[in-house]
Amino acid sequence: MIREIKYDEKGLVPAIVQDISSDEVLMLAYMNSTALEKTISTGKTHFWSRSRQKYWMKGETSGNIQLVRKIFYDCDRDTLLVKVEQIGAGACHTGNRTCFYRELIMEDDK
Amino acid sequence: MIREIKYDEKGLVPAIVQDISSDEVLMLAYMNSTALEKTISTGKTHFWSRSRQKYWMKGETSGNIQLVRKIFYDCDRDTLLVKVEQIGAGACHTGNRTCFYRELIMEDDK
Repeated sequence: MIREIKYDEKGLVPAIVQDISSDEVLMLAYMNSTALEKTISTGKTHFWSRSRQKYWMKGETSGNIQLVRKIFYDCDRDTLLVKVEQIGAGACHTGNRTCFYRELIMEDDK
Repeated sequence: MIREIKYDEKGLVPAIVQDISSDEVLMLAYMNSTALEKTISTGKTHFWSRSRQKYWMKGETSGNIQLVRKIFYDCDRDTLLVKVEQIGAGACHTGNRTCFYRELIMEDDK
């Protein structure tokens, strides 16, 4: 239930977005209760931008919207997992399919 | 590079943990720079517990450790995606394979 979600001291919950077809993790962004309600009522992912302090719908400018298929919450009720159908080229504003397109070069860091 | 990761005002970065074989999203927890260094140097996931204010290694009591295979970071450099081989029954302390075992019943919330 949506009322069971625990928001942090800023009223936010991290939302992991996963492609429901490929299972690729596409991005992570933050929702407050209104963004979650907008996501559920419209069936398209909405978030709260911490830097711009405003709501945004994924794809509102690019057209690469995300159609919500399932939403899960974790054992602590403080993280969401949103499974979506990604429309368009991808989720990342860089043009990549996923925002996680760079690997940490671990050998360099040892 | 590990130096490029951006931590929040508490020195933390969210780390999504994904099963490298099944692509299932297992959990989300937080790392600080030391936890990330421990994760890289040991090859096992380490986190910072916000509630207990201490480091913990996943599986330190249950034995269900996570062997790190790849670490990605996102376009904003403020989220990690850790791909692991999950040892044992699963990632969740409830005994479930994934912490995201409950679905939001969206119809109830409209």
